[in-house]
Amino acid sequence: MLIKDMADRCEFLGFYLIKNATVKQTADNKNYLDMVISDTTGEIPLKFWDISDMDKETYFAGLVVKIKGTVSLYREKLQAKVSKIRLATDEDGVQVSDLVKTAPVPPVDLLAIIDNTIASIGHAKMKQIVEFCVSRVKEQLLSYPAGKSVHHAYYGGLAYHMVRMLELADFVCKQRPFLNQDLLKSGILLHDLCKVEEFEGGEQGIVTEYTMRGNLLGHISIISNWIHEAALRFHIQPQDDVVTALQHLVLTHHGKLEYGSPVLPQLPEALALSQIDMLDSRMQAVEDMISASNETCVTSIRAIDGGRMYKLNLE
Amino acid sequence: MLIKDMADRCEFLGFYLIKNATVKQTADNKNYLDMVISDTTGEIPLKFWDISDMDKETYFAGLVVKIKGTVSLYREKLQAKVSKIRLATDEDGVQVSDLVKTAPVPPVDLLAIIDNTIASIGHAKMKQIVEFCVSRVKEQLLSYPAGKSVHHAYYGGLAYHMVRMLELADFVCKQRPFLNQDLLKSGILLHDLCKVEEFEGGEQGIVTEYTMRGNLLGHISIISNWIHEAALRFHIQPQDDVVTALQHLVLTHHGKLEYGSPVLPQLPEALALSQIDMLDSRMQAVEDMISASNETCVTSIRAIDGGRMYKLNLE
Amino acid sequence: MLIKDMADRCEFLGFYLIKNATVKQTADNKNYLDMVISDTTGEIPLKFWDISDMDKETYFAGLVVKIKGTVSLYREKLQAKVSKIRLATDEDGVQVSDLVKTAPVPPVDLLAIIDNTIASIGHAKMKQIVEFCVSRVKEQLLSYPAGKSVHHAYYGGLAYHMVRMLELADFVCKQRPFLNQDLLKSGILLHDLCKVEEFEGGEQGIVTEYTMRGNLLGHISIISNWIHEAALRFHIQPQDDVVTALQHLVLTHHGKLEYGSPVLPQLPEALALSQIDMLDSRMQAVEDMISASNETCVTSIRAIDGGRMYKLNLE
Amino acid sequence: MLIKDMADRCEFLGFYLIKNATVKQTADNKNYLDMVISDTTGEIPLKFWDISDMDKETYFAGLVVKIKGTVSLYREKLQAKVSKIRLATDEDGVQVSDLVKTAPVPPVDLLAIIDNTIASIGHAKMKQIVEFCVSRVKEQLLSYPAGKSVHHAYYGGLAYHMVRMLELADFVCKQRPFLNQDLLKSGILLHDLCKVEEFEGGEQGIVTEYTMRGNLLGHISIISNWIHEAALRFHIQPQDDVVTALQHLVLTHHGKLEYGSPVLPQLPEALALSQIDMLDSRMQAVEDMISASNETCVTSIRAIDGGRMYKLNLE
Amino acid sequence: MLIKDMADRCEFLGFYLIKNATVKQTADNKNYLDMVISDTTGEIPLKFWDISDMDKETYFAGLVVKIKGTVSLYREKLQAKVSKIRLATDEDGVQVSDLVKTAPVPPVDLLAIIDNTIASIGHAKMKQIVEFCVSRVKEQLLSYPAGKSVHHAYYGGLAYHMVRMLELADFVCKQRPFLNQDLLKSGILLHDLCKVEEFEGGEQGIVTEYTMRGNLLGHISIISNWIHEAALRFHIQPQDDVVTALQHLVLTHHGKLEYGSPVLPQLPEALALSQIDMLDSRMQAVEDMISASNETCVTSIRAIDGGRMYKLNLE
Amino acid sequence: MLIKDMADRCEFLGFYLIKNATVKQTADNKNYLDMVISDTTGEIPLKFWDISDMDKETYFAGLVVKIKGTVSLYREKLQAKVSKIRLATDEDGVQVSDLVKTAPVPPVDLLAIIDNTIASIGHAKMKQIVEFCVSRVKEQLLSYPAGKSVHHAYYGGLAYHMVRMLELADFVCKQRPFLNQDLLKSGILLHDLCKVEEFEGGEQGIVTEYTMRGNLLGHISIISNWIHEAALRFHIQPQDDVVTALQHLVLTHHGKLEYGSPVLPQLPEALALSQIDMLDSRMQAVEDMISASNETCVTSIRAIDGGRMYKLNLE
Repeated sequence: MLIKDMADRCEFLGFYLIKNATVKQTADNKNYLDMVISDTTGEIPLKFWDISDMDKETYFAGLVVKIKGTVSLYREKLQAKVSKIRLATDEDGVQVSDLVKTAPVPPVDLLAIIDNTIASIGHAKMKQIVEFCVSRVKEQLLSYPAGKSVHHAYYGGLAYHMVRMLELADFVCKQRPFLNQDLLKSGILLHDLCKVEEFEGGEQGIVTEYTMRGNLLGHISIISNWIHEAALRFHIQPQDDVVTALQHLVLTHHGKLEYGSPVLPQLPEALALSQIDMLDSRMQAVEDMISASNETCVTSIRAIDGGRMYKLNLE
Repeated sequence: MLIKDMADRCEFLGFYLIKNATVKQTADNKNYLDMVISDTTGEIPLKFWDISDMDKETYFAGLVVKIKGTVSLYREKLQAKVSKIRLATDEDGVQVSDLVKTAPVPPVDLLAIIDNTIASIGHAKMKQIVEFCVSRVKEQLLSYPAGKSVHHAYYGGLAYHMVRMLELADFVCKQRPFLNQDLLKSGILLHDLCKVEEFEGGEQGIVTEYTMRGNLLGHISIISNWIHEAALRFHIQPQDDVVTALQHLVLTHHGKLEYGSPVLPQLPEALALSQIDMLDSRMQAVEDMISASNETCVTSIRAIDGGRMYKLNLE
Repeated sequence: MLIKDMADRCEFLGFYLIKNATVKQTADNKNYLDMVISDTTGEIPLKFWDISDMDKETYFAGLVVKIKGTVSLYREKLQAKVSKIRLATDEDGVQVSDLVKTAPVPPVDLLAIIDNTIASIGHAKMKQIVEFCVSRVKEQLLSYPAGKSVHHAYYGGLAYHMVRMLELADFVCKQRPFLNQDLLKSGILLHDLCKVEEFEGGEQGIVTEYTMRGNLLGHISIISNWIHEAALRFHIQPQDDVVTALQHLVLTHHGKLEYGSPVLPQLPEALALSQIDMLDSRMQAVEDMISASNETCVTSIRAIDGGRMYKLNLE
Repeated sequence: MLIKDMADRCEFLGFYLIKNATVKQTADNKNYLDMVISDTTGEIPLKFWDISDMDKETYFAGLVVKIKGTVSLYREKLQAKVSKIRLATDEDGVQVSDLVKTAPVPPVDLLAIIDNTIASIGHAKMKQIVEFCVSRVKEQLLSYPAGKSVHHAYYGGLAYHMVRMLELADFVCKQRPFLNQDLLKSGILLHDLCKVEEFEGGEQGIVTEYTMRGNLLGHISIISNWIHEAALRFHIQPQDDVVTALQHLVLTHHGKLEYGSPVLPQLPEALALSQIDMLDSRMQAVEDMISASNETCVTSIRAIDGGRMYKLNLE
Repeated sequence: MLIKDMADRCEFLGFYLIKNATVKQTADNKNYLDMVISDTTGEIPLKFWDISDMDKETYFAGLVVKIKGTVSLYREKLQAKVSKIRLATDEDGVQVSDLVKTAPVPPVDLLAIIDNTIASIGHAKMKQIVEFCVSRVKEQLLSYPAGKSVHHAYYGGLAYHMVRMLELADFVCKQRPFLNQDLLKSGILLHDLCKVEEFEGGEQGIVTEYTMRGNLLGHISIISNWIHEAALRFHIQPQDDVVTALQHLVLTHHGKLEYGSPVLPQLPEALALSQIDMLDSRMQAVEDMISASNETCVTSIRAIDGGRMYKLNLE
Repeated sequence: MLIKDMADRCEFLGFYLIKNATVKQTADNKNYLDMVISDTTGEIPLKFWDISDMDKETYFAGLVVKIKGTVSLYREKLQAKVSKIRLATDEDGVQVSDLVKTAPVPPVDLLAIIDNTIASIGHAKMKQIVEFCVSRVKEQLLSYPAGKSVHHAYYGGLAYHMVRMLELADFVCKQRPFLNQDLLKSGILLHDLCKVEEFEGGEQGIVTEYTMRGNLLGHISIISNWIHEAALRFHIQPQDDVVTALQHLVLTHHGKLEYGSPVLPQLPEALALSQIDMLDSRMQAVEDMISASNETCVTSIRAIDGGRMYKLNLE
């Protein structure tokens, strides 16, 4: 049974991914596993009561399990309980990737689009720098999400976010020919690339944790360093305007100091990048939350002020 | 000579529009006219010294004049001085509209696009409401700007802003089919319509002043009233979801309470509208400021945080 | 026993109103009802353990019940437990209105004051508009509260808030004769009127929920629409200053953009209205919270910064 | 001629008060006096060109002068120019107080009301403390304004502000009998008292400057010290609740930390005090600005957000 | 066993201090004691199930107990459970002070340093005032912490904070001889002194509660009053600059209005005081939190923005 | 005559540095030079009327001139006027450096201290990185200021700021041995180093302008790049904790996102660095402003909230 279809007091059977698993003890000192399981349609808390010592050493985050269980309502939230559980075997033929929500476009196709976009960059130095940076994380782009829970939180979500932004940039550049299309596209390709240094668990398409290095530096400063490194590698002066421009775009893409950009957009393409990023990420967050919910009124959408969206059916 | 080409210590001759004209007195008690003149390429302060009583009754804002004069630098700003001046005559064949910057697309064409868009709205009640509101200001859409100085401050600027947003909306709806295209387009057509009640001088393509009614109510609340009126007119229940949705879109299009929206976006189309509005108005403000300046670094752009943009030529 | 008098480990018996009721399950999968009950003196959470299928279909929000139970302390909050429970019957003679806190003045008397105030408006058009709007919700004014929990959260609370503000306005106008008394009084009568479109459950004197329409538009914009409608109805030009002034007062009564007013007060009466509203609502919130508590230090008062009030007995 | 009636290009003759006077030099090195003069109806800048050495030693702020002069418009502001000037003599019979706007109620009457209010305080210790503090500045209450330019900026303005607030408090206490009337009235009498330590020039009914001590401590902390001193004087324990309560009221009367109150209102009377203070000071600021201007739209009112007020004549 | 060494599923035996103790009831109505116990190395929640009526009257905050118990993990936090418990007896020889973390320097030594510092103040009046104020709380300085949990939250923490700041001030004055060393040192000695009026439980080295007087006035205003009182006592004019300066330093030491200082620093020594206070309190908070935790990443540090600190071992 | 000693109506003669020079025209169309001149004691505006074409091509910012002139008061500010002016010649023997305020310690001595500090770094990789970065700007450290006008705005001001912070860090590390002294010192040496890429005119000890690259990237991100480059150069992994730590310190040294740090301090040494930076820069700004003014009350100090400082002489 898909998690999206689970309701109060139903029984279920199926394969799921363990997102979290912690051994805890009840007030009367018995061990149990407090877990969260997920599939492509959502996630749900799961209690596995009265576990054995063996169980504690068997079930960890990132593993695929087959579970028979029941669902109940607890503090107005659904929660599942294990009746039977075992690890998935090779014969089951169920992979992690089968259970993580995936970008609507296959990651390999996304990568192909990204490659084509790089190939289309006319400015030679710019192309070298972008190619250098993207090639370093090509593997990860097949799987990494763009965020933990706010937006594009799924397998290949990062590459998907890049590609959707490229489409938008393409259109905006047609509307506004004074924009340097090479620069804007390069900025999009680079801006979130170092999220791969911020996220743990990204190869599974999920973010289980932020890395220490990610917290201490942030993806914005790391990609700026990579651009610097690329320039050195290809004997481009770090003072060259093309280096400055690319670094400016990645540094400013959050749009405001209080969102973690150390400087404000001061090139038209930087402004365009931050606006397109905001448009795409917010709309996607809303689309994801709405499609994952059966309610008419979806709340707690962290990507937007107020956090509430209604679904309205205007017949 | 075009105003854009005026430089320190040059002489000029040409037709210009008076944007402001105030009679003042020098410290030694002589009258002079303190004016601002403009053409399609920019504006410049103009001093008309030692005026006669006749002069005082001749030159007013909104009139076209022929001027011979000189330019000098005063407190790091250019300023012009009248050598000779007279009102334009019919034989001169120069109209106000010749001297006001105009939207890149002729207003009649913009109106045609707007009409076609209305015609394309599939939802019958929605179309009635939008048609009612737009038809009320059709005349003004041929001339009104979208703002005083921040963005789209030119002849037909309001209609141009609407049409560019419609293009963006069209693209975004293709990317995100879950959006109600009728609703988003209607929101765009309506959102700034009542700026025609906020601006004085809009028929000339400029904003000389805000109206009292505009200051006391704001265009957001006035258009909400018009939607209500349209519903009554067509016997649509004001509680009908279509009325609520349209009003919600116009009320929320500034995106934040502190920008004057009394409620936050809570429909996906409302979020899309506010994002598209921000993207189009900021990019246009930057484009206009950059194209109007010969400097590499343009400052004081009120539409964006920091207010500074560089022009960078990546060869 | 009145809820106000319930203390740790006491037993109680009485009639109460169910404010909320949700079926939940214990960790070991048993159903129970998680409720909140109230009377005129306060409210308390109530657990009804081991319920039958029948119970689940019997007890809902808005119903009057007779309960025998016990009180205990749980996480520093009092909580009640059902020993015996049944629905109130006609013979019991207990109405919902007996269990909801009521404004200190009977609603019918409040309505009479409101009617008299309308009658006293000298400006003919203003009177027509106010009369039109108030008459539309006269029924609801007999019961609706002014808020969910912040201030005047009781039966007839909205009308009570209006009347107390009218008294204050009367006094302020005596102090400051330059104020237009008709306008200020009209503004008070109108400003919160459309809360009746925002609240669910208002006929019971409580707010169980906000309506979708209330969330999407807000009471401020809805009353502005009504004023517009009234003007149309009585053939008053919407551009007439009296319409603009009334709409300005209702639009600005929250006093700040970040509180949801789309424009700031720009008429003396608008400033007076927002100040009087703030004075009355905050003082009432404090008075209600203090009188409902036996503590010397009352905390979590949402209407005021800091949220804490001491009761001090200066002998 | 009254300053209020001066217009562009008129001549005037009359007695005025010098508010500021500075010797300056023109670009070509001639001395002149740059002054501001005022009467009860307003103020205007005044230039006195080509002054003698004698003139420089004759005209200072705070003196009454007889001036013949002319008015002109300079940078959209009216400005006067001296034709003839001399100091007022005893025979002229014009006092400073004739030229400073005065509270609508004679200061001696205000003081009488203040005395009666003190006499009406029932709580003995409270009365002692209030009496001690008020008596220390009784002289100054006959003249001091309540502010430099924001509100009640006139002769006796401080006492007038106190009396108007006492009236409001009286009314609010009738509406809300749970308030301790003695405490609220005492708070009003004390709250702004130490503005007399903040202002220079207050004996003339104007604020020419803030004192160093006023800037370093603020009137809020100084009055708190005085209350402490009064307690010591009358052998009341500083820990006595009545001392704490009075100090709390004065410390919190600005209502918010960012307005300079070190703690937030936590007694109902403290909340009432800050609300009544805000209501009275804002309304008075608006009333004063409106009555001093002939414009329909008055701008730059510093006491209110937005700073703009319209005068609307609803016939 | 020290609390710092307690881990999941271990057993422990030892003496501890009860920080909080509340009688609660389980869902099935049984009484238990919900406590927090502490020793010099940290604190941990403790459940004492199935208590007797006697138990309820025996165990209170502030008492020393001997406990045998077990530790388990509950919602990712460690929590202890009582197996056996009794009050400490005289024979046990364990004092409260043995179980409260103490400043690294013995309080008596801290007091000696404070005394020496006072003795070193050259300005006679200043010395009198400081001596008067410090002597009033000398007893409490032996035990009071500087805060509840943010910084220096331990026995003698307040005096320790003062002494560390004095060291820093000494160094800064050497770097910047233009500073008045007497004034800066006096400011440090006085600035937090009246926290002894804000805290309950300070004689035990802990803060169990804030006093009503502390909440209503704040330590900043109380010490200002004491300085005023000292001036009166020694016949120093309250207007004397030395009084103003000392009061200014204590009033401004929080550095910003929104942190509760009613005025901003306007003397160099006031700026130095607020900077040194911030430096010492934040560094100490971080040092305390880091040393009390075995984690590499310590979170929820309330004294700093973001609240997270990593321990990094650069080999 | 030193600029500090210039007063209203005095005559002066001396050598000065031209800080700014712009050709302007009077209202009656005559050219003049609008300049600012400075020496080690301050700066003053200077008008050079009726200039020749030769003059326009002679006097530019950065040149030393000999001037005879007079001083007058204009709009309450002192302003100088040229009587006679000529460029300094070699025989005059006056250098730019003679006219720019210089750090109290000779720059070569500051550099020696910086070198010694680098030599004292025990951690080998850290030393390599710091040495690499500092050596790149050693030349500039002899002259560059630390800011345009806020703090340390003088010849060698940047090196002086570094050295004073090193002294403070030395002391703080003694107080708090848990701090990694190598890391803190390295952070201080690096944190502002790339201001040399932000400032134009720094070789003269002044900031005439910000560079485009400085505005687009900011010194914080540039030094982060240099650290990355140093790591590559010395074959240190960019992921090495020492690289991360150094980058973290420079990225976070502004202490808050809204001050332009993209991440918040999360290492104790990063917190110490931002606190020490704030302490030193604010105290220096105040010391500089106070010593440069003869007023008792110095205003407009941009480095501090409120901007006002009093000089108080406690006899």
